[in-house]
Amino acid sequence: MIVVADNLRITLPVIQQAVERFDPEPIRQMANACKAAGAQAMDINSGPLTRNPAEKMTFLVSNVRACVDLPLVLDTTNPDAMAAGLAVCNGRATINGISLEPEKLQRILPLARQTDADLVAYLLRPDGHVPADAAGRMEAAVQLFAKCEKAGITAERLIFDPIVAPLAWQDGNRQNMAVLETIRTLPDLLGTPVRTMAGLSNLTTGAPDAATRKRYQQAFLPMLAAAGTDFILMNVLDPDLMRTAKACRNITAGSIFSWQ
Amino acid sequence: MIVVADNLRITLPVIQQAVERFDPEPIRQMANACKAAGAQAMDINSGPLTRNPAEKMTFLVSNVRACVDLPLVLDTTNPDAMAAGLAVCNGRATINGISLEPEKLQRILPLARQTDADLVAYLLRPDGHVPADAAGRMEAAVQLFAKCEKAGITAERLIFDPIVAPLAWQDGNRQNMAVLETIRTLPDLLGTPVRTMAGLSNLTTGAPDAATRKRYQQAFLPMLAAAGTDFILMNVLDPDLMRTAKACRNITAGSIFSWQ
Repeated sequence: MIVVADNLRITLPVIQQAVERFDPEPIRQMANACKAAGAQAMDINSGPLTRNPAEKMTFLVSNVRACVDLPLVLDTTNPDAMAAGLAVCNGRATINGISLEPEKLQRILPLARQTDADLVAYLLRPDGHVPADAAGRMEAAVQLFAKCEKAGITAERLIFDPIVAPLAWQDGNRQNMAVLETIRTLPDLLGTPVRTMAGLSNLTTGAPDAATRKRYQQAFLPMLAAAGTDFILMNVLDPDLMRTAKACRNITAGSIFSWQ
Repeated sequence: MIVVADNLRITLPVIQQAVERFDPEPIRQMANACKAAGAQAMDINSGPLTRNPAEKMTFLVSNVRACVDLPLVLDTTNPDAMAAGLAVCNGRATINGISLEPEKLQRILPLARQTDADLVAYLLRPDGHVPADAAGRMEAAVQLFAKCEKAGITAERLIFDPIVAPLAWQDGNRQNMAVLETIRTLPDLLGTPVRTMAGLSNLTTGAPDAATRKRYQQAFLPMLAAAGTDFILMNVLDPDLMRTAKACRNITAGSIFSWQ
């Protein structure tokens, strides 16, 4: 189980302002803080970047890369930003990501063909909505798997994300049990050991306070770990959550156990 | 998921002394504290009770019953103590428990035949050792299931306990992944929805300090919950652990979600 920091995101005002002003300091501070907190990879969530996408993503990626040697996950729906980010990534990169949405398949999938980057595939319906259950997620996985295979992207480059649902949704708890089932059964369904990713922060969108958010994230993280999730996208700047992640890794890893 | 207090145990000096002196106050205090903390059932772990077993178990059970109306789990290897406890239980009771060990089958199983109490069946080998893996636990379950069926004890009365292993054991983490697998697959294996129980406190035997103990219990509890464990035997006097249990129940329950 690899912990991917989801902290560097354009929705944070300090990051948004830094990108607008091309001020490297807040970006580098965040990258260094995530690494110091124990992140094993970093998601760079730039959003769609409607103006100067290539320039802004180049700025983001090159500044993170200047500070940390972690694998980077480039998280944008803008193909120009994605291409620019991949060009300066200089090390292990993941494209985040595609789905059955026609626009993603047309604009992001070709970028994956041109590089050897890993590729996140979201188990969404073609209309961009979250499937109602595990069966819907499995169906999306089978279709995405076929499309990637056809495009020459091998199974070992794929990372499926079954979409953690906010618990505050009407059927949020049932959806998240479907997420666990999907992660557990996907390799068997596809007949090959594909990797999986889950975004933990999504779970607690709309939670009433920080203590509640922390409690539910700390409860769902072990469930994801036991289901065999390979990558957990999460807030690495919460030390309690990081300690939980460490404990989960020590319990689920087949290697010699250590309390530390 | 039902939380069963494991706090009333003879290994606690205050409980041991109370039993020796037939002093009801510490027993009643513990029962009331467990109920106030949110226990949904109570394990009464009297140990083997070599001297005056019937009298001591009667004392324990009747004093707990005088304070709380929770289902009681009678946890002793002594058949005289078990029979005495069942006689004064006056409400829902569970016999805890049998295993493939010949002595347990000969001395405890007949008591289950004579009452309508639920019965915990430990997935141990006939020599009393913990099986090496999930397959060994499954095999024990199949054998125990057959023996209970033959004795006229129906599947709906059975609660299988696959034995949470101390993480400090050489293969403790692997053992506990086998526990999760057993809990997940047992109903399918037996072809009937049998219930399962797990003792969480066992996990952290030998942990270096209280914070480590709490962290690992808080990480493994959600894994047990997501696997579908019906009864969690645990320390209900740890409020953090109880909050985790509540969050687990809210995530895994099929009913309407609530943050509280």
